[in-house]
Amino acid sequence: MVVELVSVGTELLLGNIVNTNTQYLAEKCALLGLSMYHQVTVGDNRERLSQVLKTALDRSDVVILTGGLGPTEDDLTKEVCAEVMGSSLEEDDHTRDLITEYFKNSIYKEIPDNNWKQALVPQGAKVLENHNGTAPGLILEKDGKTAILLPGPPGELKPLFEEQVFPYLQERQPEVIRSQMIKLCGQGESQVEDKLLDLINGQSNPTIATYAKTAEVHLRITAKASNEEEAKELLKPVVKEIKNRFGNDVFTTKEEETIEMAVVRLLKKHELTVTTAESCTGGLISGRIVNVSGASEVFREGFVTYSNKAKRKRLNVNKSTLKQYGAVSKQTAKEMALGGVFATGADVCIAVTGIAGPISEGEKPVGLVYIACYLKDKVKVEEYHFKGNREKIREQSVVKALDLLRRSILSNYNT
Amino acid sequence: MVVELVSVGTELLLGNIVNTNTQYLAEKCALLGLSMYHQVTVGDNRERLSQVLKTALDRSDVVILTGGLGPTEDDLTKEVCAEVMGSSLEEDDHTRDLITEYFKNSIYKEIPDNNWKQALVPQGAKVLENHNGTAPGLILEKDGKTAILLPGPPGELKPLFEEQVFPYLQERQPEVIRSQMIKLCGQGESQVEDKLLDLINGQSNPTIATYAKTAEVHLRITAKASNEEEAKELLKPVVKEIKNRFGNDVFTTKEEETIEMAVVRLLKKHELTVTTAESCTGGLISGRIVNVSGASEVFREGFVTYSNKAKRKRLNVNKSTLKQYGAVSKQTAKEMALGGVFATGADVCIAVTGIAGPISEGEKPVGLVYIACYLKDKVKVEEYHFKGNREKIREQSVVKALDLLRRSILSNYNT
Repeated sequence: MVVELVSVGTELLLGNIVNTNTQYLAEKCALLGLSMYHQVTVGDNRERLSQVLKTALDRSDVVILTGGLGPTEDDLTKEVCAEVMGSSLEEDDHTRDLITEYFKNSIYKEIPDNNWKQALVPQGAKVLENHNGTAPGLILEKDGKTAILLPGPPGELKPLFEEQVFPYLQERQPEVIRSQMIKLCGQGESQVEDKLLDLINGQSNPTIATYAKTAEVHLRITAKASNEEEAKELLKPVVKEIKNRFGNDVFTTKEEETIEMAVVRLLKKHELTVTTAESCTGGLISGRIVNVSGASEVFREGFVTYSNKAKRKRLNVNKSTLKQYGAVSKQTAKEMALGGVFATGADVCIAVTGIAGPISEGEKPVGLVYIACYLKDKVKVEEYHFKGNREKIREQSVVKALDLLRRSILSNYNT
Repeated sequence: MVVELVSVGTELLLGNIVNTNTQYLAEKCALLGLSMYHQVTVGDNRERLSQVLKTALDRSDVVILTGGLGPTEDDLTKEVCAEVMGSSLEEDDHTRDLITEYFKNSIYKEIPDNNWKQALVPQGAKVLENHNGTAPGLILEKDGKTAILLPGPPGELKPLFEEQVFPYLQERQPEVIRSQMIKLCGQGESQVEDKLLDLINGQSNPTIATYAKTAEVHLRITAKASNEEEAKELLKPVVKEIKNRFGNDVFTTKEEETIEMAVVRLLKKHELTVTTAESCTGGLISGRIVNVSGASEVFREGFVTYSNKAKRKRLNVNKSTLKQYGAVSKQTAKEMALGGVFATGADVCIAVTGIAGPISEGEKPVGLVYIACYLKDKVKVEEYHFKGNREKIREQSVVKALDLLRRSILSNYNT
């Protein structure tokens, strides 16, 4: 089954926003085992939208259109779809009720006239209830072709797709597709690919796709089969083999788990508390830990010690260490980690000091970063040479710091 | 002049990456005053790419193709373009030299055979030197139509576009386009639009476009004219009028300045130092301040006090305050700000405490956030009710905190 994405909106053509919906939908369609050959973006223009839709319906089985379902005159997607697919618009009572309900709980005193337009649906269309806005999703089928219309705001599109469109498409797919995520930290994408070359080249089912993220590599292993059981059986040996090859580089096999979630999970498991002592990352590591709901169980406080004076006062870094080795040194990182534990009584401290640039410091180059982790009377310090601009260097430092924390726990507890 | 974007790459069709190049190029083309009606993504497939390119050249004057210029067999953009535009490939000596040079400084001992393919260019093409990779950019002109080929990695594409393609397109544009950015914090997008309705509806040159960002609204005012002077004259009164209407809500009129850069600029101007006392934001505010190169002049340290104990110990928040009003209260925020200044000797402290969710605390709802700013013996505290998930609530808190800091400085110094 071939699917095509059509994004509708002049704001996309003007570059006002990044089209993240397309990536989201493309990934989900790949997960469903659907083939995709084209993605098209077109503005709020009747003639051009009509032409794009006709071409898409001609060369693809399913066309997913996003955007242009709003209440204003610019919003044309529904009207054009109905016209192209030979259907007429009629009012949907249930949608009308939902719009009334939606506005009851809003700041508006009256329902704007325009919004009633959103209760009109093409005759014969399947109406998908939208719990996060007033534009319903719509599915139109005609002569073996399907158009799926979804609202543009990601907060409306994603739940609608997840809950109603995904199962609809899955049902129409004769094959069952199952996939497994494996997330790694510690190797670059090309290194990971090199290590998997035999698996990637040797097999077409399951397939292995690599996704490079900041200091992480994600692998998606996808199997097609005639039933769920068979798909799982196909996945199992490949997933096992990959996990064996990468060992502790694997930080999670859960789709939604981030590295900070994996770290907080490990800290909870071993009943450890953590503190942070940050220089060049400036609070971004603690910021990531606090991303995790329930982080308060393992994280109570952190220090952002940007100046030398703060490193001395808060973390008791020796004046002579700073003088002899400098703020960006293995020795300072080590003392920061020790000082963090000493000041807070936490079980673990992760400390970072480095040169994020753009200006190097004396002989020390931009990108030089030291990360230290104190755990159970041991301090491990690592030296990194990151590439990229100030932001990239800091982002990589954050991920590598979280990863060092994770590895320190693993090696200490042999889990 | 009508321009069309064609992104080439199966990884985009699989949703492996978000297509940020398209947004970047679309914004630049809008800035140049070019019209754009279509953006298309197609995979690494000879037949489909050829078809997409033919359609694009048929309906547009300039087609910008990105991706598919790499050294592997999958990379077809150059070959297909040459074929469609009736040109043949020949080796470019200068590009060959650059490839040799590039690999001299790399980890590779030998130049992979594949890479010589990148020295082939269509006959008659303008070759754009790529300083960040081995694939040159290319411009092909034929029968009044132009194809511009750029490498996919943003780190290669952006400098190539900025330095070589932008001036090329600008020269071919008969009109001069000049635009002015105005960035606001303190009002929602619809409020801003309401206040500008007369200007937006009344004028077609300059035009006013609004861009909603997290807790910010950006306005781009764009004028077309026959020369630079005239364009500037068209912009001036509109920019002045908008600045008048929004007063201190405007935090910058510089294209590249972020709110944290504006804050650091103001702190430097008034020779003030700042510290941070963060609970729910967990270090993200200090992280943003440290984003700014040169922040060390105004920022020395910050506190992440997530637990009540840390609030008491580091910031001297009263036990009775925490007990009576709770950690998320106006009183606690105020004491955190006072405590931050007291502990560090900084001139200013920005403090945040709130409920990021997903679970509310007693009667206090998710999204309730207090932000306090201490400056010159005065503390200002603001109460916010943010919407969205944990991440969104924290992101909004960070921007509003930076904005309160900015406003506090402005009102204290009447600047």
